[in-house]
Amino acid sequence: MTIDEIKNHFDEDVTISGFVDEIRNLKWVQFVVVRDQTGRVQITIEKSEEANKELVEIIDNLTVESTIKVTGKVMDAPKVKMGGVEIIPSNIEVTSRNIGELPFNYKDISTVNLDTRLDYRYIDLRSDKNILMFQIQSNLVRYMREYLYNNGFTEIHTPKLLGAASESGSEVFEVKYFDRSAYLAQSPQFYKQMALASGMGRVFEVAPCFRAENSNTSRHATEFTSFDVEFAYINDFNDVMDLEAEMLSYAFEKVSDKFADKIKEVFGSEIIVPKMPFPKMRLADVYKELEERYDYKVTKEDMNDLTTEAERLCYKLAKDKFDSEFLFVIDFPAEKRAFYHMRDENGVLQGYDLIWRGVEITTGAQREHRYENIVNAAKEKGLGEDVKFYLDFFKHGCPPHGGFAIGVDRLTMLLLNIPSLKETEFLFRGPNRLAP
Amino acid sequence: MTIDEIKNHFDEDVTISGFVDEIRNLKWVQFVVVRDQTGRVQITIEKSEEANKELVEIIDNLTVESTIKVTGKVMDAPKVKMGGVEIIPSNIEVTSRNIGELPFNYKDISTVNLDTRLDYRYIDLRSDKNILMFQIQSNLVRYMREYLYNNGFTEIHTPKLLGAASESGSEVFEVKYFDRSAYLAQSPQFYKQMALASGMGRVFEVAPCFRAENSNTSRHATEFTSFDVEFAYINDFNDVMDLEAEMLSYAFEKVSDKFADKIKEVFGSEIIVPKMPFPKMRLADVYKELEERYDYKVTKEDMNDLTTEAERLCYKLAKDKFDSEFLFVIDFPAEKRAFYHMRDENGVLQGYDLIWRGVEITTGAQREHRYENIVNAAKEKGLGEDVKFYLDFFKHGCPPHGGFAIGVDRLTMLLLNIPSLKETEFLFRGPNRLAP
Repeated sequence: MTIDEIKNHFDEDVTISGFVDEIRNLKWVQFVVVRDQTGRVQITIEKSEEANKELVEIIDNLTVESTIKVTGKVMDAPKVKMGGVEIIPSNIEVTSRNIGELPFNYKDISTVNLDTRLDYRYIDLRSDKNILMFQIQSNLVRYMREYLYNNGFTEIHTPKLLGAASESGSEVFEVKYFDRSAYLAQSPQFYKQMALASGMGRVFEVAPCFRAENSNTSRHATEFTSFDVEFAYINDFNDVMDLEAEMLSYAFEKVSDKFADKIKEVFGSEIIVPKMPFPKMRLADVYKELEERYDYKVTKEDMNDLTTEAERLCYKLAKDKFDSEFLFVIDFPAEKRAFYHMRDENGVLQGYDLIWRGVEITTGAQREHRYENIVNAAKEKGLGEDVKFYLDFFKHGCPPHGGFAIGVDRLTMLLLNIPSLKETEFLFRGPNRLAP
Repeated sequence: MTIDEIKNHFDEDVTISGFVDEIRNLKWVQFVVVRDQTGRVQITIEKSEEANKELVEIIDNLTVESTIKVTGKVMDAPKVKMGGVEIIPSNIEVTSRNIGELPFNYKDISTVNLDTRLDYRYIDLRSDKNILMFQIQSNLVRYMREYLYNNGFTEIHTPKLLGAASESGSEVFEVKYFDRSAYLAQSPQFYKQMALASGMGRVFEVAPCFRAENSNTSRHATEFTSFDVEFAYINDFNDVMDLEAEMLSYAFEKVSDKFADKIKEVFGSEIIVPKMPFPKMRLADVYKELEERYDYKVTKEDMNDLTTEAERLCYKLAKDKFDSEFLFVIDFPAEKRAFYHMRDENGVLQGYDLIWRGVEITTGAQREHRYENIVNAAKEKGLGEDVKFYLDFFKHGCPPHGGFAIGVDRLTMLLLNIPSLKETEFLFRGPNRLAP
């Protein structure tokens, strides 16, 4: 059984397994703390008892971080911190041995270089904080999916190996594919739209994306997990924003129910279940208010997009103006966006950025679904043969649709107040990092 | 609303959207069948009614496979096949136009070459069969995940870009990674084990795997979706088999509840919720019984693994001997398996194949978790520097563990009695296919 189950088995014999977290070998007694992914428990061995001779010897030869399997009786022990119980063992089996000194003390990383931690990620991940982080991330994704299943979505798995470099060739990884080249998908964008052109109605995908960006920031990685949603029969891009907001709100509530206390305790971060609807503001209005309220003045050349500083201030603006953590920013100039984003008859982009805690977590939009319009939009951006296969999807009817993508690692980073993607990816990949 | 919801709105005005499935333009009346991912409905327009003049003109100019949005009243129409209802429209909007003839008739593919279908996959997918197939696949994966969530598993996302070619270099895709090379993951095997060495306890991943195999069979693809499971603190590999059987049984039951009738109707396949436990047989005993029962004699050089024909006969054997569709085959010779599979003190492999409907759907095993043993096992297979990073995971304690992987596309193929992976992958990837 797992360690969190022990409390339901007072006075019973149980078998638990885990890592040796701590050994205190005193004159008359041995205390061994065992941990698994659900918690910790103390094992207590009285040295004076003849029957314990063998157990005492096992502990004498044990190293911390080895793994053991313990059978024993669960006893009430109000003085013991770990749940007020201890186990009095009748049998201990050493199932693996830590044979050397750890490369660093993962329980106190204050003086450990991040690169060292990533070099030895299999040690770094042993901390309670990291174990918990991935349990939370897993649940976040679980409940985002659940919301979509409940709303008629189908999960798809689109190929990551492409015959042509999609969208922009410059940031695409090239693969040696037998006697030719293939390219790694930067996003499932084209294929999730293909699913809708095929009549699948509402689809999503959770999968890796690859970007050959040679930049080292806390927010960029060459590989990351993208949560991609796309659905048909929308009226306009408000439907896309609304569904995203509903989905996030649903998942946050579920995660909050399970983890709010732990998130506060371990990460010092509060999970606030957002109220519906999320506020929306036009980009120009954002800049106007940022200037009025916080004296932030954007330069002319930057005012067609959100600057990093403006994104940061949007968090404050959303809270001050709307008492919200989230803010949809709309009415970006079309030239800044991908050709497949829909524009209305006045050329206004039917897309948005979602800003949360000072960072853009999503770009979403209604897509252009009419063949002639999408062909022209591609032409305007100078895109030719490489996107022809994509343009074909729209030749034989395609319903109006839209969608968005969320970076799972980035969402985790913001939710738990963690400074860098390098820590929220299971194994970070950057221009200088492919190991372990 | 979706078309399947209409039946709850008799005599009400509704708005539905979908593809134009069929147009019958008769002298006095127009019938238009609209379909979405949930079903079909008939729209009926009386030509003689003055108020319909505009609608009649719209339909006169409409092509099948265009998309429309229809507002109208839901009427009882017992004679109409599609649910006994029809919509009397007050408004029709054409939201996209099919501007040319379809490359083939996706409703009758009997004379269409599979390669043509794959070239125009966005048309091929429009068939009811394909839409349903992916809805079923999505649910199958959903409920396999649900079983794992309910049993304390954490979903992880491991990198697909690797610094070294893992396991065997020959079947690995090479990626140009800035000024060096990277390799695409053939499986998350090493990293899901890393998660357990890090104390995560129970993990799974659903993600693409890449194999540079230059072979064209119905069961192979260069990219496929793998459902990977790995968990710690097992007693032996029976725990692994049991968990896999439980998971499949859980998911099959849920999928059967939702889709059994449709699977039978559309695919002519029966979904049988398996009884627990699944039977297990030693490889040598399998060959003995195949000879005794079906006169199948394996050659000496082939008897260390299951031949394709033996796999096929195992389906019959499982049914005849155990009244089961599933059969675990155990006691494979260790030399045939990966170095990280556990062997017992007699050298017997602690692993298995799971055979279903004549095809191996899983290889699973307890893994070697003790540092010295795994180092020796790697050495025996002549593996050196490339796996050193992996061997390091076991240096500082690692609990006993095991796991398995299931190909999602292959599972779908067998469940729905579809002849080839080329049809169950959203977009098949093979040595000669990277498009669309």
